[in-house]
Amino acid sequence: MVSDSIERVAIVGGTHGNELTGVHLVKKFERFPQLLHRESFECVTLLANPQAVVANRRYIDRDLNRSFDNADLANLATGYEARRAQEIVLELANVDLIIDLHSSTAQMGLTILPSSRHPFNLKMAAYLSTLHPDVRICYGIRCNADDPMLRSLSPLGCTIEVGAIAQGVLNADLLIKTEMLVQAILNYVEAMNQGKPLPVPSSVTGYQAIGSVDYPRDATGELTAMIHPQLQFRDYQPLHPGDPMFLTFTGATIPYQGAATVFPIFINEAAYYEKGIAMTFTDRQELIVDS
Amino acid sequence: MVSDSIERVAIVGGTHGNELTGVHLVKKFERFPQLLHRESFECVTLLANPQAVVANRRYIDRDLNRSFDNADLANLATGYEARRAQEIVLELANVDLIIDLHSSTAQMGLTILPSSRHPFNLKMAAYLSTLHPDVRICYGIRCNADDPMLRSLSPLGCTIEVGAIAQGVLNADLLIKTEMLVQAILNYVEAMNQGKPLPVPSSVTGYQAIGSVDYPRDATGELTAMIHPQLQFRDYQPLHPGDPMFLTFTGATIPYQGAATVFPIFINEAAYYEKGIAMTFTDRQELIVDS
Repeated sequence: MVSDSIERVAIVGGTHGNELTGVHLVKKFERFPQLLHRESFECVTLLANPQAVVANRRYIDRDLNRSFDNADLANLATGYEARRAQEIVLELANVDLIIDLHSSTAQMGLTILPSSRHPFNLKMAAYLSTLHPDVRICYGIRCNADDPMLRSLSPLGCTIEVGAIAQGVLNADLLIKTEMLVQAILNYVEAMNQGKPLPVPSSVTGYQAIGSVDYPRDATGELTAMIHPQLQFRDYQPLHPGDPMFLTFTGATIPYQGAATVFPIFINEAAYYEKGIAMTFTDRQELIVDS
Repeated sequence: MVSDSIERVAIVGGTHGNELTGVHLVKKFERFPQLLHRESFECVTLLANPQAVVANRRYIDRDLNRSFDNADLANLATGYEARRAQEIVLELANVDLIIDLHSSTAQMGLTILPSSRHPFNLKMAAYLSTLHPDVRICYGIRCNADDPMLRSLSPLGCTIEVGAIAQGVLNADLLIKTEMLVQAILNYVEAMNQGKPLPVPSSVTGYQAIGSVDYPRDATGELTAMIHPQLQFRDYQPLHPGDPMFLTFTGATIPYQGAATVFPIFINEAAYYEKGIAMTFTDRQELIVDS
């Protein structure tokens, strides 16, 4: 961003190859570029991990969306995603705002994950939250420029994480809602660029990630329990001390043993089994939006 | 089956490596073999595609569950699943009844897919249908010994197809229900072996597959439409002529244009995009159960 105005926006899909919502929205935008046309800025699209898209897998060699920290980029790391990350850094070098389109097997609704704590992002997310009751604003544990995700290549923008959607599946309803959010972001940027910012609420509910919890496992790393049926698909709902959290394969309930009520998200996300994450706890907060 | 009694039952999981319900049930049964103990027959377990389980993918080189026809097995086909199929034929040679545990991203409930039209299978499925309202009995298009699926290695038995579950995810509720069905099958066999067959209804609703439909695609094979939101997760519900079936990426509804009402299943199954199957039409029938 060379001035106060945003000159170039990137819409990214297929950072994970089996998250088809973003893949097909990017393909649609590439086929109908007029959908992205605005007077005051340019829009570019990027299919971030085309080999993984073809393979219908999250990634080929490693998770592309964990390949953008300085150490990764500085090293001549081997493997397909390491090379793609270096290429993408160059491709998006002149972009002021990045929208990265994802989906989750968890009941994430229409989650906005701002790329940084820049006040612009919160205002934009607060605007989006007025458009649909399923929009929720979530800040990651390390929500700053060192976060090795694709969205971190620009301080402005967000990841849109919709769900629940199985990997390798298109859900029409959630694709339409994702497209609505992309259009709303472009409208928001256009209005701001033209000095007529869209109205935003003075405060908004946000969810601050505070830590993640793995599945119970045995000494060899094998799962010994599953997400409890009473917690499945209950993302963003309060989990109180003593509430059922896991169910062992032998039928025992493991309760949540923390002292404070938390709001779990990414509950039973397929891609996080290998990362050792059964869910991420968040703290619900009322956020003041600078006018 | 050397006589009228069933002497050996196989419980198979992980035929598809990312269908975790069967994988973890087989692991549970291997850890607690007493759960499978019955007086009148032996139970064996099999994790059919262990490399795919480790990779958390449906398959490594090709779909194992399409690798059991005579041509596949006669040839010294190359690739991991071709070798596994040949090994599994030997491992299951003395088995009288096979239960193959699967899951689907479609709303399949607790579907029983009998291994053949043997009257025993229908009676057993009819018994299972009394245990839970989500149990449905479905016969494939080619439900006979030439069907190149693992279940075809024995005329007795079935596939249990539960859903909706995302690939790579454990759903505790559906795992518990799958385990209930496995136990019920073992109880049914035990009672039959002991000459005290469990009561079955005299007729039962069945679904006969009559054909499959691909997604609308362009000349290059790219999808041009998705399952219509009004059809998503509506497996086993009637689809009437003129009902919405697909929604194009540009927002046009494509209706079902057949002349007769059908009952689609496997709607939006992730693994079937590559097979050119958006859903399978079935015909609902009342089946007479021989007493």
